[in-house]
Amino acid sequence: MKTSRLEAFSDGVLAIIITIMVLELKVPHAVDLAALKPVLPVLLSYVLSFIYLGIYWNNHHHLFQATEQVSGGILWANLHLLFWLSLFPFTTAWIGENQLAAIPTAVYGFVLLMAAIAFIVLEHFVAIPLAFVSPWIASGLYVFAALLWLIPDPRIERKLENRKE
Amino acid sequence: MKTSRLEAFSDGVLAIIITIMVLELKVPHAVDLAALKPVLPVLLSYVLSFIYLGIYWNNHHHLFQATEQVSGGILWANLHLLFWLSLFPFTTAWIGENQLAAIPTAVYGFVLLMAAIAFIVLEHFVAIPLAFVSPWIASGLYVFAALLWLIPDPRIERKLENRKE
Amino acid sequence: MKTSRLEAFSDGVLAIIITIMVLELKVPHAVDLAALKPVLPVLLSYVLSFIYLGIYWNNHHHLFQATEQVSGGILWANLHLLFWLSLFPFTTAWIGENQLAAIPTAVYGFVLLMAAIAFIVLEHFVAIPLAFVSPWIASGLYVFAALLWLIPDPRIERKLENRKE
Amino acid sequence: MKTSRLEAFSDGVLAIIITIMVLELKVPHAVDLAALKPVLPVLLSYVLSFIYLGIYWNNHHHLFQATEQVSGGILWANLHLLFWLSLFPFTTAWIGENQLAAIPTAVYGFVLLMAAIAFIVLEHFVAIPLAFVSPWIASGLYVFAALLWLIPDPRIERKLENRKE
Repeated sequence: MKTSRLEAFSDGVLAIIITIMVLELKVPHAVDLAALKPVLPVLLSYVLSFIYLGIYWNNHHHLFQATEQVSGGILWANLHLLFWLSLFPFTTAWIGENQLAAIPTAVYGFVLLMAAIAFIVLEHFVAIPLAFVSPWIASGLYVFAALLWLIPDPRIERKLENRKE
Repeated sequence: MKTSRLEAFSDGVLAIIITIMVLELKVPHAVDLAALKPVLPVLLSYVLSFIYLGIYWNNHHHLFQATEQVSGGILWANLHLLFWLSLFPFTTAWIGENQLAAIPTAVYGFVLLMAAIAFIVLEHFVAIPLAFVSPWIASGLYVFAALLWLIPDPRIERKLENRKE
Repeated sequence: MKTSRLEAFSDGVLAIIITIMVLELKVPHAVDLAALKPVLPVLLSYVLSFIYLGIYWNNHHHLFQATEQVSGGILWANLHLLFWLSLFPFTTAWIGENQLAAIPTAVYGFVLLMAAIAFIVLEHFVAIPLAFVSPWIASGLYVFAALLWLIPDPRIERKLENRKE
Repeated sequence: MKTSRLEAFSDGVLAIIITIMVLELKVPHAVDLAALKPVLPVLLSYVLSFIYLGIYWNNHHHLFQATEQVSGGILWANLHLLFWLSLFPFTTAWIGENQLAAIPTAVYGFVLLMAAIAFIVLEHFVAIPLAFVSPWIASGLYVFAALLWLIPDPRIERKLENRKE
């Protein structure tokens, strides 16, 4: 199996996730600048999630540069990642409507964490066939993932982002 | 005709179907964990349908690996499959909002069954030109589809899934 | 310019149009089969528009099989077609909620007609560069479009559909 | 890195943005032509934004014709452009519901301006690797962008559009 359809499908899902978050920006009925005030926290949470999803798309892009073939395991690991990313619009809207509330922010962080773990799992699956092509890149992915597991908290995210930039 | 556009269009439709189901996760107004309780059954039905659609995308992916050319019949058989899959968000939302209610679950099962039948029909159409390339693969698809028809109930689904994994 | 991005973009827009119509199927609160009764006309109008959009996608697919290069004119003629097709969800929902009402049905027919005209215009633009490759196919497209203009009413649609099947 | 995935992802996001604006066309409950009257300004603002997004898609299409490789900088400049374009549905709905109101129109213009600036920034990033391929095209892009900066107001937009037509 080629990676092209997996990439196209993932691009489609990510493009939709990133865009439907905009639907949470409810159009105000008033026409003055003050009408934008309740929209602002929703907009800020949108910007935050937009950046996160951009990071995931970039990393996904890089990851599949390295591999040519996909197995059933990779297909499912990829769907698992997309599942957690698909919850972003929900958690983003929840923190957007309740700025600084503890529980929504914790749930937002939980989904971020699960997406980070799903990405690590995907990297493992990708590394397995890669081992036959280049054991060095494959080993690098394993070492990197192992390091991440030593710090199992939401800060994993920021590490993950900085990596590929 | 090449299969590339059929695959791209199907990927697009499946990516949208899988993602708009998330819109049914209504953002709660409260900010405690209890506020997530009414969201939970909707989330569970989302997970179930996400897995089903993932299975269909995987099988679709495999099916079109085998073929190079598409005919008008394949185009329409594919649209027929996409039509039934496009009803997933509706039936998923209905079972999600009425957990364990008999009628919504039956309607959900009916749409699952119709999608399974549509997939079998698509396999037949794909097998016809395939017969000129490899009669053995084509025959295999026919035999498989015939076996499925002997068990014409929702369990078809699970069989279909296990096949290609 | 290659046609690949124009095809990919059109596939994306058509996939979204065909799928967001499903959002008009409002989830009933009741859990008996009678609850599906108000959904039925919306579902029927969805089926009708799904078939129309399927026809347009198939014809679009065929049209760009013949051509390799796109000009600015083709890009805009294509966007013009997509614009009218993008109004399908709106008109479909309107006839779905008001079955057999005269005005919504007329507006639905008007959008169908405009999409048919937009397709004919697109065919002309595609035929212009095609004339340098194959004057015969280009001429055939012109003759066909001219014939269509002799019958300038919504029945154009059905003609258009039967053509490429 | 190849540009193909960047193009596919951008096409996906643009296709969704252009299509979800239609969701703002609320289906009227009445069935006479007068029922379309409140829809009309929303439709007109939709047409305007549709044309703008069409222009951006066309220009984006042209820009990436010239380049083969993408860097991390281009990926982020592209996401930055998509972010501002993703706000079109929100601002379009706001001006559509409040025709001729000053603040919504100003906010609409601000988002247009930011998208124009984001496009210029993207052109710069694309020009950097391009300089190694063709210093002349790269220089042309720089000169063009410099000229645009001399006229830093919403009219930038119209200039940008006319350029590539």
